Amino acid sequence: MNLQETIRQQAEQTKRAAAQLAFCETNVKNRALLQMADLLISQSAFIISENEKDLTAAREKQLAAPLIERLTLTQKRISEMAAGIREVAALPDPVGEMGHFRRQPNGIQVGQMRTPIGVIGIIYESRPNVTADAAALCIKSGNGVILRGGSEAIASNRAIASLLAEAGVKVGLPPHAISFIDTIDRQAILELLTLSDCIDLVIPRGGEELMKTVVAHSKIPVMKHDKGLCHVFVDATADIAMAEAVTFNAKTQRPATCNAMETVLVHQAIAPLFLPRAAKRLRDAGVTLRVCTRTMALLVEAGFQCGDGGITEATEADFHTEYLDLILSVKIVGSIDEAMKHIARYGSAHSEAIITQNHTNAIRFLREVDASAVFVNASTRLNDGYQFGLGAEMGISTSRIHARGPMGLEALTCTKFVVLGDGQIRQ
Amino acid sequence: MNLQETIRQQAEQTKRAAAQLAFCETNVKNRALLQMADLLISQSAFIISENEKDLTAAREKQLAAPLIERLTLTQKRISEMAAGIREVAALPDPVGEMGHFRRQPNGIQVGQMRTPIGVIGIIYESRPNVTADAAALCIKSGNGVILRGGSEAIASNRAIASLLAEAGVKVGLPPHAISFIDTIDRQAILELLTLSDCIDLVIPRGGEELMKTVVAHSKIPVMKHDKGLCHVFVDATADIAMAEAVTFNAKTQRPATCNAMETVLVHQAIAPLFLPRAAKRLRDAGVTLRVCTRTMALLVEAGFQCGDGGITEATEADFHTEYLDLILSVKIVGSIDEAMKHIARYGSAHSEAIITQNHTNAIRFLREVDASAVFVNASTRLNDGYQFGLGAEMGISTSRIHARGPMGLEALTCTKFVVLGDGQIRQ
Repeated sequence: MNLQETIRQQAEQTKRAAAQLAFCETNVKNRALLQMADLLISQSAFIISENEKDLTAAREKQLAAPLIERLTLTQKRISEMAAGIREVAALPDPVGEMGHFRRQPNGIQVGQMRTPIGVIGIIYESRPNVTADAAALCIKSGNGVILRGGSEAIASNRAIASLLAEAGVKVGLPPHAISFIDTIDRQAILELLTLSDCIDLVIPRGGEELMKTVVAHSKIPVMKHDKGLCHVFVDATADIAMAEAVTFNAKTQRPATCNAMETVLVHQAIAPLFLPRAAKRLRDAGVTLRVCTRTMALLVEAGFQCGDGGITEATEADFHTEYLDLILSVKIVGSIDEAMKHIARYGSAHSEAIITQNHTNAIRFLREVDASAVFVNASTRLNDGYQFGLGAEMGISTSRIHARGPMGLEALTCTKFVVLGDGQIRQ
Repeated sequence: MNLQETIRQQAEQTKRAAAQLAFCETNVKNRALLQMADLLISQSAFIISENEKDLTAAREKQLAAPLIERLTLTQKRISEMAAGIREVAALPDPVGEMGHFRRQPNGIQVGQMRTPIGVIGIIYESRPNVTADAAALCIKSGNGVILRGGSEAIASNRAIASLLAEAGVKVGLPPHAISFIDTIDRQAILELLTLSDCIDLVIPRGGEELMKTVVAHSKIPVMKHDKGLCHVFVDATADIAMAEAVTFNAKTQRPATCNAMETVLVHQAIAPLFLPRAAKRLRDAGVTLRVCTRTMALLVEAGFQCGDGGITEATEADFHTEYLDLILSVKIVGSIDEAMKHIARYGSAHSEAIITQNHTNAIRFLREVDASAVFVNASTRLNDGYQFGLGAEMGISTSRIHARGPMGLEALTCTKFVVLGDGQIRQ
C-alpha cells in the first residue's frame, strides 16, 4: 500500500471504531484510561529507551537545547502523563448528558443529548506528552482519534501510542479507536486533511507554520489554536498593588505561552502612580520595555535610564508583535474607550484583562471586548482548562464557532436533538 | 475595481460593521427588524416589479414551472416575509446571555457569555424569502451578514436586500451590516470563500452541487446543510394506528423536504399486521413502494398487485437513495439491532424515528442512533426550528461540530469565557 492508501485505511478503521466507541459504557472507557496509565508506568523503561532514539537524532541534528529539553522523557514526566490520564478518567463523562427538555405546543418534548463528534485528527509538534493527553481526552469523550506527532518525536510517540492502543483493546475498547500515523513524511498530513468522509474535526497544536498549513489545506473542519496577543488594561480606579501583581504575573510567570501579556495599557490618570512602580519591578526581572512617548516622558521624569535598550520607544510594529519573551509594550490611554479600541485593533482575541474598581467599566469590558476569555481583576495567564475547572484541555481554541477558549471534554462533543412524542405528526 | 477587489471591500466593510453590531442594544436591533418588515410591506410594489424582471428572464430561459413558482413573489408572500422578520424581533436576544458561573479553588468565578460569531456569509439558491429570513436572524444574533443569492433571483434579492439595509441604517444599525453580492458571476462565490480574515462562517443553503462547491473551496468554516436519508423504524410493540399515522405523515406530508422519510423499517413481529394497512394507505396516496423480498411475499399474500411499478423489489441502490418524492423503500428487520445497523449504514444522520411502546428500545434508539434529531413516537417531519420551539431557523445543520439540527438564533452565536477575580494570578 502507498502512503495515501495506508492513511485512508487507518482513517476508515478509526471511523468504524468510533461508531462503537460512541455508545461505549463510561465504565469501560474509564477502565481503559486507567489501564493506559498503568501500562505507561510499567513500560516506562521501554518508553525511555525509545525516547533515547529521538534524543540521539535530535542531538545529531543539533536541535536547540530548549527543544531537546521539551522532547526529553524522564520517569517523572511519564508519571505526570499517567497522572493526567487518571485525572481524565475521574472527570464526568460528557456523552449522553441530556437536558433543556421543553414541551412544545403539540405535546412533543424536545431536548438535547451530548454526543461524540466522531473521529478527531490531532496534528501536533514536539512534546510527546500530547500523545497521551489528546488520546485520553478523545477516548473519554467517545471520539476515535488519529494522532500525527512531530517527526523529531516519532519513536517516543509511537511507543506511547502503541501502549495506549494496547491497553485500550485489552479492556474492551474497539480496536483502532486510537490510531497513530507512523511516518515522518509530511505528505501524510496533507493526505489526512482530505479525508472529510472519515475525519470530523482536525485540531492542530503547534507553531504558526503548522497552523497555516492545516488551515490552508484542510477539507475537514479545523479548531484553530492561534497566537495570543494579549493585553492588560490598568483602569483609572485600579488597585495599584493588584495592578502591579497582575501585570507582573501576566508578563513574567511564563512569557512563552499564548496567554501571556504582550502589552499593558494604562489609564493616564493612574499612570504617574502605577508606571514607575511597575516598571521598576519589571526591569528588575529583566523585562525590556517598549513604551509610548508619554510613558517615556513619565519614566524619564521618574529617574529611569531610557533609550539604552532596556526602555525604548515602541514602534507601530511592536504593538502588533507577540513577543513570547520578556519584552513588554506599554501605552498610556485617555479612556477605557481608547483602551478597547487599541485591543480591537492590535489584539488577537485570545485573553484580555481589565484591572478596575469601577463596576460600569468592568461590565463594559466584559461585554465589549472580543476574546476567548475576558478577565476582570485577574491575570490573563489563568486562561487554561485546569484554572477554569474544566480539567484537562485540548488547548485553547481561537476559532469563532463551536468552542472558544480552553477546550475541555465538553468541547470535544456536540449535541443531537431528542424528541419524545406520543404519535405527533407534522400538520 | 475588479470583482475580487469589490468583494474584499464589501467583506471588510461588513467586518467593521459587525464589530459595532456585536454590542448593539437589543432595542436597536429589534427596531431595525420592525423597520425592515414595515419597509418590505410599504415597498411591496417595488419588490414585485423587480421580481417581475426575474420572472421574465426565468420564462425566457424556460425554467421548470415549480422553480418559477418558488421564485414568484406575491403580496401574500411579502407579508409572510415581513411577519417572519417580526417574529425574529420578538424572540429573546441570545447575545450577552451569561451563565454557568462557578467559583474555582483560587476564588475566580468563571462563566460564559454568549457572543455573535462575527460575519456570516450565506450562499443560497432560488427562494428570495431567504434574503429576508437570513438577514433577520443574523442581525438579531449580532452578526454582520453577506448575502449571495441565486442568479435567477438577482433582481428580487437585490430589491429586498437594499430595503433591509436601508431600514437598518435608518434606525441606527452600522452601515454595511447587511451586504449583498450584486453579481451573477459564479466567481464571486469562490472569491468570498477565500476571505477567512473577514468572514467567520459560511452557510450554504441549496442543492447538492452548491454544497459540494462550497465545501471543496472554502477556507472559512462551513455549516453544512446536507441531504436527509431518513428512516422510521416500526418496532414489534408499536401502536399500529400511531405507526401508520407517523409513517404516512413522514412520507407524504411534504416529500421533497430533507426530513421526509425515505425508508420504513418494520419489525418482523408486527409486519403482518402493519404492512398491509400502511401499504394500502400509501398506495392510495400515490406512493410507489420498493420493498424487500419478505415484504413482497407478505403483500402478495395480502392480495396486493405487485411488480406493476406500484410495488417493486428494492435494490441495494434504492436503500441509498434520497427520493424526495412519493417513493418509499420498505424493509422487514428481525430486531432493533438490525434496524439500527441499517440506519447506520444507509442513513445520512439527519432525522431518525422509532415507533415503539418498549421503554428500553426507545432509550436505546435515542442513545445509539447517530442523527441531528432522533424521535420516539413522532414524525421525522418535525425536525424543524419552529416545531422545536427555536423560532425561525437558518436551516438544518448536518455538521458534526458547533450545531446539529435546526439552527436557531443560539446556533448563530458562540461563547466567550468570563472571569471575575479580585487580583488572582497564576501560581
